[in-house]
Amino acid sequence: MKISRIEHLGIAVQSIDAVRPYFEDVLGLKIYKEEVVEDQKVKTAFMKVGEVKLELLEPTSPDSTVQKYLDNGGRGIHHVAFKIEDGVADSLAYCDSKGIRLIDKAPRGGADGLHIAFLHPKSTCGILTELCEE
Amino acid sequence: MKISRIEHLGIAVQSIDAVRPYFEDVLGLKIYKEEVVEDQKVKTAFMKVGEVKLELLEPTSPDSTVQKYLDNGGRGIHHVAFKIEDGVADSLAYCDSKGIRLIDKAPRGGADGLHIAFLHPKSTCGILTELCEE
Repeated sequence: MKISRIEHLGIAVQSIDAVRPYFEDVLGLKIYKEEVVEDQKVKTAFMKVGEVKLELLEPTSPDSTVQKYLDNGGRGIHHVAFKIEDGVADSLAYCDSKGIRLIDKAPRGGADGLHIAFLHPKSTCGILTELCEE
Repeated sequence: MKISRIEHLGIAVQSIDAVRPYFEDVLGLKIYKEEVVEDQKVKTAFMKVGEVKLELLEPTSPDSTVQKYLDNGGRGIHHVAFKIEDGVADSLAYCDSKGIRLIDKAPRGGADGLHIAFLHPKSTCGILTELCEE
């Protein structure tokens, strides 16, 4: 598995509008795109810091996994996404061979046109980890 | 406040040796430096992913804030550090003027030779946030 960089950090928020002043006015970042990802039941908002995107995740439904994360007291960084250079499917197979618990057995479509798959935090040092490629 | 990039992600772990196989053998990253930071009561281990460092944080004392974080069920990403281009002291003053709660009123020394200061997660979207400069 070849990781080239952190593609994005997913940040769980109850309301993008409520945190916009912090990210835009205090940190001086700029939200350049907002997108609803229906199958993940989230609204997303993207910023860029150097080569890394920050992806705000606002639940659009009470049964969104992000809403459950917030309801369980989860705050802040929801997941870390690594950009994969040699294919998400091959990397999943490699992780599986190393005994890493997979959430997704095969790549699927994510926000921002990416092919993505998640590894389970039980196997990844408590960090919900996404592998992605364009 | 001018942020150029994410300088590092701090990752709380009970044992660096226990998670080394995941980061090195599965993710293919390389720990290139280990350093004890006495005043933070942590042992650190550094890796690089693109332009961002991953900083593993292992408590060296039961009263380390990282040990308390782990004892309280905290896992994974402990903090996000932004590289500041126009001075940490000035940025702290700016954050203070915007009503952001500060943990450090003035910059202090951190791991890897950085000048650092922390913002309180109550004001930063639940993300313990470090400002740093070389």
